[in-house]
Amino acid sequence: MTNWMDKIKWTDDGLIPVIVQDYISNKVLMFAWMNRQSLETSIEQKKAVYWSRSRKKLWVKGESSGHFQYIQDMVIDCDLDVLMIKVKQEGGISCHTGRQSCFYYKVNMDTKNLEDCEEVIKNPKEIYENKK
Amino acid sequence: MTNWMDKIKWTDDGLIPVIVQDYISNKVLMFAWMNRQSLETSIEQKKAVYWSRSRKKLWVKGESSGHFQYIQDMVIDCDLDVLMIKVKQEGGISCHTGRQSCFYYKVNMDTKNLEDCEEVIKNPKEIYENKK
Repeated sequence: MTNWMDKIKWTDDGLIPVIVQDYISNKVLMFAWMNRQSLETSIEQKKAVYWSRSRKKLWVKGESSGHFQYIQDMVIDCDLDVLMIKVKQEGGISCHTGRQSCFYYKVNMDTKNLEDCEEVIKNPKEIYENKK
Repeated sequence: MTNWMDKIKWTDDGLIPVIVQDYISNKVLMFAWMNRQSLETSIEQKKAVYWSRSRKKLWVKGESSGHFQYIQDMVIDCDLDVLMIKVKQEGGISCHTGRQSCFYYKVNMDTKNLEDCEEVIKNPKEIYENKK
């Protein structure tokens, strides 16, 4: 299929959700959003560029932390409204808290409480101070 | 953390996005949405119950196909706005097209075209006819 980007069901804000996985383990690292420009740039550079909804601008993942994401694989779903990328995660850390993955609150299905299930690999202060 | 459901950053429509993975391979099977009621029911029954945005009602995954999803693990992210569940997928098919995964359009990063990368395990007509 060509011209598939024209067929993507962008949200009203012109965005598509993006699931980000480690390219070897398939572990889900984070979840973010892209607009058309960031998607085109990501494909061109084979590096993850998102749309920051809070800062309302393009966000080169790793620009302040050094934790760039090199895209190894990109897949889109049957409805053309969700994107998935598999990345080589620079530094092995995708979360701003210094963890490998942003998904670190495990729901205990019996007690129904949350439990932290990911170790902090690097102190966030250290990650961001070094880059300024 | 208790009372974490009160802290979830629900969308304006009262929903949270849900990433669905196979509990053994970590393969991403689909992406859906839950509201509070469907989340509570999912935890209670350890079975995926979503909110259907198109039909505007609770959607027990598998109710018409038989392809129920038994939840083995549930994790939420640092911002409390994305959920991830690991499931045992009944029938090994999560997509309404009869494929294992809904993510079957691979983006060829060089030609920039889409390529179907998942086989159809069962004809959808057969899946849905048998259940009526």
